[in-house]
Amino acid sequence: MAQDSETLVHDLATRARAAARVLALAPVERVNAALVSLAGLLRAGGPHLVEVNGADVAAARAKDLSDALVDRLTLTPARVEAMAEGAEVVAALPDPVGRILWETTRQNSLIIQRVSVPIGVLGMVYESRPNVTVDAATLALKSRNAIVLRGGSEALATSLALHALVQQSLQKNALPPEAVAMVPTADRDAVGAMLGARGLIDLMIPRGGRSLVERVEVEARMPVLAHLDGVCHVYVDVSADPAMARSLAVNAKMQRTGVCNAAETLLLDSALDAAAARGVLSALAEAGCAMVGDAAAQALDARVGPATPQDWDTEYLGPKMSVAVVDGVGGAIEHIARHGSGHTEAIVAQDAQTAEQFLAQVDAGSVLHNASTRFADGFEYGLGAEIGIATGRLHARGPVGAEGLTTYKYVVRGAGQVRG
Amino acid sequence: MAQDSETLVHDLATRARAAARVLALAPVERVNAALVSLAGLLRAGGPHLVEVNGADVAAARAKDLSDALVDRLTLTPARVEAMAEGAEVVAALPDPVGRILWETTRQNSLIIQRVSVPIGVLGMVYESRPNVTVDAATLALKSRNAIVLRGGSEALATSLALHALVQQSLQKNALPPEAVAMVPTADRDAVGAMLGARGLIDLMIPRGGRSLVERVEVEARMPVLAHLDGVCHVYVDVSADPAMARSLAVNAKMQRTGVCNAAETLLLDSALDAAAARGVLSALAEAGCAMVGDAAAQALDARVGPATPQDWDTEYLGPKMSVAVVDGVGGAIEHIARHGSGHTEAIVAQDAQTAEQFLAQVDAGSVLHNASTRFADGFEYGLGAEIGIATGRLHARGPVGAEGLTTYKYVVRGAGQVRG
Repeated sequence: MAQDSETLVHDLATRARAAARVLALAPVERVNAALVSLAGLLRAGGPHLVEVNGADVAAARAKDLSDALVDRLTLTPARVEAMAEGAEVVAALPDPVGRILWETTRQNSLIIQRVSVPIGVLGMVYESRPNVTVDAATLALKSRNAIVLRGGSEALATSLALHALVQQSLQKNALPPEAVAMVPTADRDAVGAMLGARGLIDLMIPRGGRSLVERVEVEARMPVLAHLDGVCHVYVDVSADPAMARSLAVNAKMQRTGVCNAAETLLLDSALDAAAARGVLSALAEAGCAMVGDAAAQALDARVGPATPQDWDTEYLGPKMSVAVVDGVGGAIEHIARHGSGHTEAIVAQDAQTAEQFLAQVDAGSVLHNASTRFADGFEYGLGAEIGIATGRLHARGPVGAEGLTTYKYVVRGAGQVRG
Repeated sequence: MAQDSETLVHDLATRARAAARVLALAPVERVNAALVSLAGLLRAGGPHLVEVNGADVAAARAKDLSDALVDRLTLTPARVEAMAEGAEVVAALPDPVGRILWETTRQNSLIIQRVSVPIGVLGMVYESRPNVTVDAATLALKSRNAIVLRGGSEALATSLALHALVQQSLQKNALPPEAVAMVPTADRDAVGAMLGARGLIDLMIPRGGRSLVERVEVEARMPVLAHLDGVCHVYVDVSADPAMARSLAVNAKMQRTGVCNAAETLLLDSALDAAAARGVLSALAEAGCAMVGDAAAQALDARVGPATPQDWDTEYLGPKMSVAVVDGVGGAIEHIARHGSGHTEAIVAQDAQTAEQFLAQVDAGSVLHNASTRFADGFEYGLGAEIGIATGRLHARGPVGAEGLTTYKYVVRGAGQVRG
């Protein structure tokens, strides 16, 4: 069985690598045409997709899987339409390949350019959201990378049906269908085989729960673009506008609580006027947010329960927030350095110098001044789409779009120069 | 012992991480002043350095280490001066940190920037060249990264003496000396401790022989910037100028043979006129190059011996070259796809379309048209200096200078925007 998975993954990745070489040279117009074809195929195939998905959903229900998982797994006509629109958005993005990133002409007349190129073959391991199949395939194609997909077993039939449409769209546009490969079994060994396929897969992208991501980070024999945690903070400085502080804290925490860029911890400047601090806590409580905090936070509002040490590192993914009182922006920066997950951090402040200190000193994929942490995603940043939000420091960071799936090479043009 | 090394490395890296946070905020002028101070300290300390190095060299001789290793290990007044000049060159480089790499203003008036920032803490494991201590420290400082250095045991006394000067230059300029840490023992467990220090060291850079680099690639629990092999090719197209082909082939192979950007394989277009092909082989033979090749290459010149299958993947690092006859640029591209190491590949051709096909389709850190492979280094590209030449695809590629040691974060400025 393990041997079978290895052979299977090896074959898919080898053919994907050959396809990647073709794709790297394909005109962007043809890739865009394939993405537009895909949108059409998704719309035309919508009823069939929803039907296939119904079987996955029924099986998940029969296995008594959680409502949240069943919801993530479910395709509706609206979700199919969203995937189709997503493919069109990616088709309309500027070409991320072939950009001249840097150029110099040397004294010996050599012209040296750094030019963006595809990474090669991506590997993506994900869980139950079927739309990831389409999002990942479209971003990979736009950046002229091949990709080997391995979706969650609960969504297997749905993912295979979506994958068939992706391959059709490639074939219709004279592009190699092997460029988007999918592991067609629920066999868990296949993940291990992908993680060991160094030299065949250039970059692994896990997307799912913490245990999946940690397994990929530990086992992968190639670079990993991972999203680990989203322990995001909102710091309210003494110089904050009180109304803006209430609005941003509530939006960052409560606008959608199950997502990674929702805030988990509120940091209140100890110099804040008690009325302003209480105003933020009341606004959160009134919006339905449970709160735990340190002694100073508890003293501000009786609805704040005691926090455990674990709370400061917890991504609640629900209507709950931890609250700490800190000594100014320096205290906030220190707290975030200890407990932040490198995802997204925000300051609410009217004082520009304080804001700039926060933006410079806080180390995270995204740092925001007077804006909700909920904006930290590829669509909101204008990247068109995202394959995920990276919380590591390399290769790409924060929301990763098609451009983040490229690397570069040096192209040097001469007239016979030799080195002396 | 293993426990001791782990504690030691953990302590050094923890203090380096704290120093990295200070360094990230230090004005570039102060960092540049430290680099200029270092140049002065190197010059003033030259005689002492050469004396300390004498003991390392004597010990290496007593252990009967190879002449090549002893040469790499040896400091001379000229080599000390070269290090001092290198520090000054790095001081004069533009600031790689704080560059705005991309900027957009969204419809909701959010201003989104991608800004270059330091990576954090680098780890460098290297062998006997003492200058690596200074090169690595200066590039790390310029890019505002801390670095943990672990040099080869043969050069330990020399490296420690150089490291002391680096720390002095930091102290003199009110920068934290812990930003450049050095493992002060020859204990081999220290390398393992560094490779396991995930979360403390953000990027490992091995510099040395294949076995060191492979160990780092296999064991490192963090991203690796590695230089594995330099199997570089020179392809001579039918459209090549014969004189240029001779000159470039000889320069690429023979100008300096022990270096990674020297060529190892000559690819001759089967459509080349026999006189032109023989001219290249004769020029190489006359320059003192031994040659092995396929049957077609052997038929061109009796001095070409038979190649084994291993020859096509061998980095000779000496005056020897493998020669294959290929079918045009397509054949060359195929040969390089199978046997290239992703380092540097060159085409000699007068036909511009053929050259562009080669530059686009060959996958390597550097691709050159009508120029010697020997130009593929950070100095020749105008990067000022290089920490190494990366043969992987991520994070940086080809010659890596101070800019390659940065990553980015998204900085978002708003006026209270919330997400709807």
